[in-house]
Amino acid sequence: MAERAALEELVKLQGERVRGLKQQKASAELIEEEVAKLLKLKAQLGPDESKQKFVLKTPKGTRDYSPRQMAVREKVFDVIIRCFKRHGAEVIDTPVFELKETLTGKYGEDSKLIYDLKDQGGELLSLRYDLTVPFARYLAMNKLNNIKRYHIAKVYRRDNPAMTRGRYREFYQCDFDIAGNFDPMIPDAECLKIMCEILSSLQIGDFLVKVNDRRILDGMFAICGVPDSKFRTICSSVDKLDKVSWEEVKNEMVGEKGLAPEVADRIGDYVQQHGGVSLVEQLLQDPKLSQNKQALEGLRDLKLLFEYLTLFGIDDKISFDLSLARGLDYYTGVIYEAVLLQTPVQAGEEPLGVGSVAAGGRYDGLVGMFDPKGRKVPCVGLSIGVERIFSIVEQRLEVEDSLSSGGTQQVVLLWVGIFLFCFCSLQAELLYKKNPKLLNQLQYCEEAGIPLVAIIGEQELKDGVIKLRSVTSREEVDIRREDLVEEIKRRTGQPLCIC
Amino acid sequence: MAERAALEELVKLQGERVRGLKQQKASAELIEEEVAKLLKLKAQLGPDESKQKFVLKTPKGTRDYSPRQMAVREKVFDVIIRCFKRHGAEVIDTPVFELKETLTGKYGEDSKLIYDLKDQGGELLSLRYDLTVPFARYLAMNKLNNIKRYHIAKVYRRDNPAMTRGRYREFYQCDFDIAGNFDPMIPDAECLKIMCEILSSLQIGDFLVKVNDRRILDGMFAICGVPDSKFRTICSSVDKLDKVSWEEVKNEMVGEKGLAPEVADRIGDYVQQHGGVSLVEQLLQDPKLSQNKQALEGLRDLKLLFEYLTLFGIDDKISFDLSLARGLDYYTGVIYEAVLLQTPVQAGEEPLGVGSVAAGGRYDGLVGMFDPKGRKVPCVGLSIGVERIFSIVEQRLEVEDSLSSGGTQQVVLLWVGIFLFCFCSLQAELLYKKNPKLLNQLQYCEEAGIPLVAIIGEQELKDGVIKLRSVTSREEVDIRREDLVEEIKRRTGQPLCIC
Repeated sequence: MAERAALEELVKLQGERVRGLKQQKASAELIEEEVAKLLKLKAQLGPDESKQKFVLKTPKGTRDYSPRQMAVREKVFDVIIRCFKRHGAEVIDTPVFELKETLTGKYGEDSKLIYDLKDQGGELLSLRYDLTVPFARYLAMNKLNNIKRYHIAKVYRRDNPAMTRGRYREFYQCDFDIAGNFDPMIPDAECLKIMCEILSSLQIGDFLVKVNDRRILDGMFAICGVPDSKFRTICSSVDKLDKVSWEEVKNEMVGEKGLAPEVADRIGDYVQQHGGVSLVEQLLQDPKLSQNKQALEGLRDLKLLFEYLTLFGIDDKISFDLSLARGLDYYTGVIYEAVLLQTPVQAGEEPLGVGSVAAGGRYDGLVGMFDPKGRKVPCVGLSIGVERIFSIVEQRLEVEDSLSSGGTQQVVLLWVGIFLFCFCSLQAELLYKKNPKLLNQLQYCEEAGIPLVAIIGEQELKDGVIKLRSVTSREEVDIRREDLVEEIKRRTGQPLCIC
Repeated sequence: MAERAALEELVKLQGERVRGLKQQKASAELIEEEVAKLLKLKAQLGPDESKQKFVLKTPKGTRDYSPRQMAVREKVFDVIIRCFKRHGAEVIDTPVFELKETLTGKYGEDSKLIYDLKDQGGELLSLRYDLTVPFARYLAMNKLNNIKRYHIAKVYRRDNPAMTRGRYREFYQCDFDIAGNFDPMIPDAECLKIMCEILSSLQIGDFLVKVNDRRILDGMFAICGVPDSKFRTICSSVDKLDKVSWEEVKNEMVGEKGLAPEVADRIGDYVQQHGGVSLVEQLLQDPKLSQNKQALEGLRDLKLLFEYLTLFGIDDKISFDLSLARGLDYYTGVIYEAVLLQTPVQAGEEPLGVGSVAAGGRYDGLVGMFDPKGRKVPCVGLSIGVERIFSIVEQRLEVEDSLSSGGTQQVVLLWVGIFLFCFCSLQAELLYKKNPKLLNQLQYCEEAGIPLVAIIGEQELKDGVIKLRSVTSREEVDIRREDLVEEIKRRTGQPLCIC
């Protein structure tokens, strides 16, 4: 550092010297000479600091995971994966980018959020926006008609951070999907069951799963008198009801989207309703709605769904909510979204509408979009939004403080001039020290909560022994080298890891 | 499909009609009218199939992982991670892309292989090329002076497939690095120990680790009379010695890179040597080389390194090889590369130079390139190239065929009209069937090697029992519903998974 500081000083002085000569109108040769010196000094100094500082960050909307955060991540993934496997799912993985064409026409308005790769010659590529479209591409490519798979990976969305505080542009999704022809609503019911199992076992607070059906929404719009061309845009207005009041939504429908006020009011009468299976039965009696073929199918399926949910014992967690619309294009039937009821307030996060931690639905048309013969494979799935869960669990664990990185360390080897290879078959940490002070190292062990210490000094080395010291009781005993591994095993109860 | 076929026919006919009218020089109005109809039909038809077919692939140089391949991946990662943890490493993760500036100037000629993201407004981004540069950026950003970390993630290189058959553009790296000031060669020795532990335990055949030192190479070039400006390019020529003969390398040096023949010959005398610690001692006596400060430092460190490698009992795996140069810019000291000795021939793979399965070295300058104050953090690390290991292990397991995806299934529930939620707390698979044929389902169980079957028909449902059937002995017994979980546990010895 000192050296760099000196160099900077020299550059400054030489710069002044050059300026001085110029003012004095010194000879061109002399000035040239001094400028050359200046450039030489600057070259030695290397790239200037302000530039370096600018580079020192992760891209907007992304973050590193520290070891502590990784521990949380692994804890959460473990719960999720065990549940997925218990339900008989296999795991697959796909590339982080897909051909641009593979993603086009799948996400509606959200397509503008897709990351494209630069055209460096060859194929046009985009980063995956979710795991569902790559899954459909995988099914079509491998001509699969029937699979239960899970996939845990990062997806990429160029979200406008102003709109979505607290959210990331690179984030994990944990997807479980069932592809194939089955009796109606059975796979759909299992997806909801899985959602409830995972959210319960993660202990992130009470939650509610809103359920609706695209066919009911479309039927409802039809009978309310919404022109087909406006279905989608009105749908996205309705979707806002979890964030803003009905009045605001109505204003948007009428003002911005040119819907007749009476049409909007009819929609309002429906979408402000939510409840259990009783609401399904009530709507099945609705003279207008029950006349619409699509809506009727949707309602009948929901009735059957609720029967299965009752069998699963999760009907109390489920709410039929006519305002749930979901953004993505590819849903064709049942849709659902799980929200946390009391969300711990996160720093810099929107107070509203951030409760959603899992979602999904049925998409029977997506695989057909990829299959050369248009062969359809009905699919239903769910996606757990873990980033938000990470931060909740992180907070909880910080309180419990059950996550010291030294937690797994059973033994520490103290460096006293030389170290012993036989230890490498034990989960042991080697303390490298330039000038080791035994006391500092013992202190480290106490702080890191390491119970047992093995000291190998010159003397121990000569005698072919190792001094074992209990950090708590501080009593020491010499062990013959060949007995060491067994002794440590006995004391720590830790099995040998055979790599 | 029929409908689509009809539409295609209509489009064809309408197309002919339009062509006909044009030939007949019909009125512009009429032609316009018919063209409009044609376009309308084409719009109904949607994107044409040939396009669809074209989309149906993963990007060049990438692949999906099937459940079977994922099982291999997890097996290999498990071995590697257990070893990394045993050596006291913590795990971190970083984003898949970095600011473009973060990667520039770190990879020398290889920089042209970096994937850039399209400029969609905002920051200029590139996909990570390795895990080392992001690690250095992480250290500088978090002002860390001292950490042992591992990182397992995919990296991205726009390799020319013609040159690198059998390799991928998206592939995994498993990195272990030690950052901090320690006694010379101790972390370096541990990295080599880790490499040997992992390669041995993966049972992928006999291997050899070549070791060299950048300082020895530079010193050697200096005393041989290579001009400083040519160090790097001559270095990359030397690096080819594992693929081509010395004559070819010499021709490149003299012919393409304009080195004097006698200089090349002097280099040749050195780089064709390899051996153990004895070669190090011999070169320490070399009158010219030992006079070069850099080379002397490198040789002395290698001598110390070999002492530690002997203690670790891996010196027989290590070969001091003066032809090992390694491509990347950022190495400053010891470098190493592990090669398989008898490589199982892979379909469509180069017979030469594909033996490398792990590599690494010391890079003491990299963190300083990121630190605002140029603060240096010495680092040494290793990277396991697992893609090649995956395919070797895959082949071995195919032989053993110890990887049936049903292998973890202990129980299967047969669908006979309704199913039971209590099962969801067991690792059980639910067979969805539209028209379930009991025999087909039992057959599936035998093929999938599922030992135990629970049958729930209408009758069982009425009686509140479940029929348990042993797939092998085929004997059946009715169990009371509340005893079922315990009974299955008893028979399969499988503990309940509490999600």
